[in-house]
Amino acid sequence: MAVTILKGTIVSAPTLGQVDIVEHGYLVAEDGVITGVFSSLPERYASADVEDWGEALILQSFADLHLHAPQYPMLGTGMDLPLLDWLNTYTFPLEARFADTDYAREVYRALAKELISLGTTRVCMFSSLHTDATLILMEELEKAGVTGYVGKVNMDRNAAPGVLEETTEESISETLRWLEACGDFKYIKPMLTPRFIPSCTDEVMAFLGKLAAERGLPIQSHLSENDKEIEWVRELHPDCTQYWETYAKFGLWNDRTVMAHCVWSDERERAAMRDAGVTVVHCADSNVNVCSGTAPIRTMLNEGLKVALGSDIAGGDHLNMFDVVTSSIRASKIRYMEGGKQTPFLTVPEGWYLATSAGAAFFGETPGFAPGNPLHAIVLADDALPPLPAVSRFERCIYRRQKNAVRAVWSAGRKVYAAE
Amino acid sequence: MAVTILKGTIVSAPTLGQVDIVEHGYLVAEDGVITGVFSSLPERYASADVEDWGEALILQSFADLHLHAPQYPMLGTGMDLPLLDWLNTYTFPLEARFADTDYAREVYRALAKELISLGTTRVCMFSSLHTDATLILMEELEKAGVTGYVGKVNMDRNAAPGVLEETTEESISETLRWLEACGDFKYIKPMLTPRFIPSCTDEVMAFLGKLAAERGLPIQSHLSENDKEIEWVRELHPDCTQYWETYAKFGLWNDRTVMAHCVWSDERERAAMRDAGVTVVHCADSNVNVCSGTAPIRTMLNEGLKVALGSDIAGGDHLNMFDVVTSSIRASKIRYMEGGKQTPFLTVPEGWYLATSAGAAFFGETPGFAPGNPLHAIVLADDALPPLPAVSRFERCIYRRQKNAVRAVWSAGRKVYAAE
Repeated sequence: MAVTILKGTIVSAPTLGQVDIVEHGYLVAEDGVITGVFSSLPERYASADVEDWGEALILQSFADLHLHAPQYPMLGTGMDLPLLDWLNTYTFPLEARFADTDYAREVYRALAKELISLGTTRVCMFSSLHTDATLILMEELEKAGVTGYVGKVNMDRNAAPGVLEETTEESISETLRWLEACGDFKYIKPMLTPRFIPSCTDEVMAFLGKLAAERGLPIQSHLSENDKEIEWVRELHPDCTQYWETYAKFGLWNDRTVMAHCVWSDERERAAMRDAGVTVVHCADSNVNVCSGTAPIRTMLNEGLKVALGSDIAGGDHLNMFDVVTSSIRASKIRYMEGGKQTPFLTVPEGWYLATSAGAAFFGETPGFAPGNPLHAIVLADDALPPLPAVSRFERCIYRRQKNAVRAVWSAGRKVYAAE
Repeated sequence: MAVTILKGTIVSAPTLGQVDIVEHGYLVAEDGVITGVFSSLPERYASADVEDWGEALILQSFADLHLHAPQYPMLGTGMDLPLLDWLNTYTFPLEARFADTDYAREVYRALAKELISLGTTRVCMFSSLHTDATLILMEELEKAGVTGYVGKVNMDRNAAPGVLEETTEESISETLRWLEACGDFKYIKPMLTPRFIPSCTDEVMAFLGKLAAERGLPIQSHLSENDKEIEWVRELHPDCTQYWETYAKFGLWNDRTVMAHCVWSDERERAAMRDAGVTVVHCADSNVNVCSGTAPIRTMLNEGLKVALGSDIAGGDHLNMFDVVTSSIRASKIRYMEGGKQTPFLTVPEGWYLATSAGAAFFGETPGFAPGNPLHAIVLADDALPPLPAVSRFERCIYRRQKNAVRAVWSAGRKVYAAE
């Protein structure tokens, strides 16, 4: 049995808004599974090696529940364009390049490495419509040490003709070919990924719903991101009162579903999410960058919805989840101000919880460094910054980090990154 | 005569919203003063050394027109607290520590170095009320290569009793002692700095106004940041209809005045700024972090006001002005959305202009890399990122940078930073 023992300032988020800190504490895993956080090392581990990180912070690693892998090369570009122009000018032509598997290999290898170096060890990720590139993405993520789900995108209507499109037949047959081929991955699993309602025919949606049921596959897509999209969906599905019903009617609405954005989800749509156990993925940067709005996250939390965070690159411009946390806090402060300072904004511990424990919950984990969870952790140095009490160091590390702060990363029990 | 020639992708912002790019261009300075940007090297420089940066971007460096030096150690902490609690719990006790000149030396040396390494070469900066620490700050900035203005803070009422306070007599005599002592600095000059209206008695304000007139000194302070502060000012100066008049009546309102925030400045107050030539310093991060609001920057620009940007650490959490630009853009997108998408948001070139040319204008420079300006420039590498056309590289560099992107910095003609 392999024992991992990390010593340092152990910080975890066991419930929304709470931060547990054990200074000079021990985070212990057996065969990659956490057995506990201890203030003194239990006798049974007395002979095991201790990786001593001194005063450094040892934190839960991040879960990024919504991002578009093929948009990685365009991060930070096109930010002045409206959504549709942005898609047509930048996104679709770029995604089309992933027909080239060499290009895919190069980009996805860089993305996987950067994710790990930033402490993101769990993802729900969109690929493009390309089966081979999707398999390459899964391979590179697995190699780098990222865990989670990846989806070959289905988009058999309203795509970019001559640039990026698939027929309904291709969409179906390629999805099957992809699922066939990704049986060998251990840490990266397939996730059904209709791009969004306007991109998918009823036939493909029905096919995906059937697959989800038959194979117990998880599902990711977009929901109620902006007003024009919502209007479009209403025109496409006049039988549905609300956007979410267009997923539900095809069997794509359950507790293994993650829906990005949900900026404009009203009380009824939110209730539908809560009742089905759907996870909302809040993408604050993207929602501001492309002028979609600010999602009612506090209200969702109060109503008992599951909410996690996503970088949503390249609508979002931050791959670093530390920055995604602060953006989420800022977005909540905007809503706080707009609403006459009635609904409280997200606190730092709450933002942190959403980016770690809440996202990890989608992968079956218990909040915090709970016994039974696979070991997902990062070591963060801040010794070049002014000394502060541990709780202030935790707060500060969200907003500000010294150069090369992430010193080491563990993912599903394995040490997958060590800074030079 | 010393000639500096930098070769690379020269990017400058000659007017609001415009970006000039000269690929494989030459930025030339004689004795530290720019003579031009050339697509081929003029004959007269044929024998001079060329510092060839290949494809790297050569950009104007930043001007940060509002930040609090003594708050540097608390960057990123206390972000969940309301403004007054934040001041009393964190800010005032921390500022009080700058009575210790050793502490001041250590903190200000680190701050000056970080500023330069981030490409900020011009500042308008608040110190604390401590004369000696203020002189140390000026010394460290000057040594590191930062140029601009620093102010010993005046705060002779409503301070933190027993923690951080000065009497009216001290405030006056220490200001005079400070001005006496800072005659030797070449690049860092004194700036009168009443903390804000509630912190200063009429006696000190009158004294500062007289000093400003007699010695032609520039002035910095805070204006219309949040509703409670505005209400307080109204109570303190019932003779003034608006906040700005409390500065104007003491002779602290002219074209050498910078006023931070101006979140709630209405049409009349904005007209008073425009007519007097006061520079507004927009601090988007701080305004959201402490829930002040979002300033009407587009409206101010349309009305012909001078607007520059400030990091406002530690209400702001970003010292890096690249991040300050994106935060300003995001704040303007929030206003765009709130206002029914009528008033356009700040584009990337506009945000960039505000952080560079607009700030530099306060120091007498002409926008862009104009002949006659002192050479203030940064070299930014992005060769580890996917190749893109130069204009997209410029856009991307605002939002996203490779590790150690800032390769070198020039300030007032001198090379003040080179990355390891």
